[in-house]
Amino acid sequence: MDVLPISVQKLIHALGRLPGLGPKSAARIAMFILKSSERYRADLGNTLIDLKKEIVYCTRCNNLASKDPCNICSSEKRDQSVICVVEDPLDVVAFENGSDFQGVYHVLGGVISPVNGIGPEDLTISVLTKRIENGNIAEVILSTNPNIEGEATAMYIKEELLKCNRKLSITRLARGLPTGADLEYADKTTIKRALEGRTQF
Amino acid sequence: MDVLPISVQKLIHALGRLPGLGPKSAARIAMFILKSSERYRADLGNTLIDLKKEIVYCTRCNNLASKDPCNICSSEKRDQSVICVVEDPLDVVAFENGSDFQGVYHVLGGVISPVNGIGPEDLTISVLTKRIENGNIAEVILSTNPNIEGEATAMYIKEELLKCNRKLSITRLARGLPTGADLEYADKTTIKRALEGRTQF
Repeated sequence: MDVLPISVQKLIHALGRLPGLGPKSAARIAMFILKSSERYRADLGNTLIDLKKEIVYCTRCNNLASKDPCNICSSEKRDQSVICVVEDPLDVVAFENGSDFQGVYHVLGGVISPVNGIGPEDLTISVLTKRIENGNIAEVILSTNPNIEGEATAMYIKEELLKCNRKLSITRLARGLPTGADLEYADKTTIKRALEGRTQF
Repeated sequence: MDVLPISVQKLIHALGRLPGLGPKSAARIAMFILKSSERYRADLGNTLIDLKKEIVYCTRCNNLASKDPCNICSSEKRDQSVICVVEDPLDVVAFENGSDFQGVYHVLGGVISPVNGIGPEDLTISVLTKRIENGNIAEVILSTNPNIEGEATAMYIKEELLKCNRKLSITRLARGLPTGADLEYADKTTIKRALEGRTQF
């Protein structure tokens, strides 16, 4: 790469740190950016620099928001007694787009992951337990991802929540075959869970 | 996505325009950027804004450079009579890293592509013909990519160059099996070309 001007090398290096981009795709994207309009570059550049100026984290649910509390937490139309606990703001987007969930959310900001040095204290679990202690919460839906770290985090949070309120209903999203799946290609665990969770037809 | 603050939506939208990034990966990258340090965002943002300040295009070979003429065109160690014609600056990087090519380059800035509205006049072909007319050029290696558009562009340039100098040696990169390939998975055209171009062993 040292044939390229320093500023292009810097750009490729910075882009290469983004998740899912290797050096080759970073270089290709850099070339695209070079060919793109001055305006696009300035827009993207200024968006990056000013990014956090207009963003707050909702002190109630820890979701990204433009005001505090966020639109969902301050909405009278939402059922404030049902909390869906998710890993990050994109999961909220997924729920809002893909379901008619009428409750509210709690964004953990990640999962417990000893490998990456992320412990329970790095997540917003204590904020969640305070919500349980203070408010009239009927149900908490633990919607961390269905993988090892997500499961472990859900287990940990369940224990913490039960310490606050023994009668709290704590649920987890159903496990089974995704819509449009092909049984032939489904992995063992998915089949096992789908069988275990079979419903009356 | 309208659950997210406007500035995050803007960032996802801008990132989604980059080649190879769909809306999902753009959103994931945006979340990474939000979590990254202020310094990383400022660095990347300023690099984007100032990108073209320190970059020039070499008036001889049209490669990205920090000075004009570029290091390669102004080097006494390079054979200025052999020109390797490539589509874009990353191809120059590929040659410089992967070969001991001692000649110079000519960057076209793309390929002829009627579908994308790119004609010969959008490339630096006229600059190349002037180089042939003015200088003592012995050989031109047409190194556009071995696909339909690259081949068509090479054919077009060959005709143009022969108009300038009938005696010019015009070559094309060898076609055949890539190193490490598996015959079983090679496509028809590759096998055909490898057979046609077989060499004495």
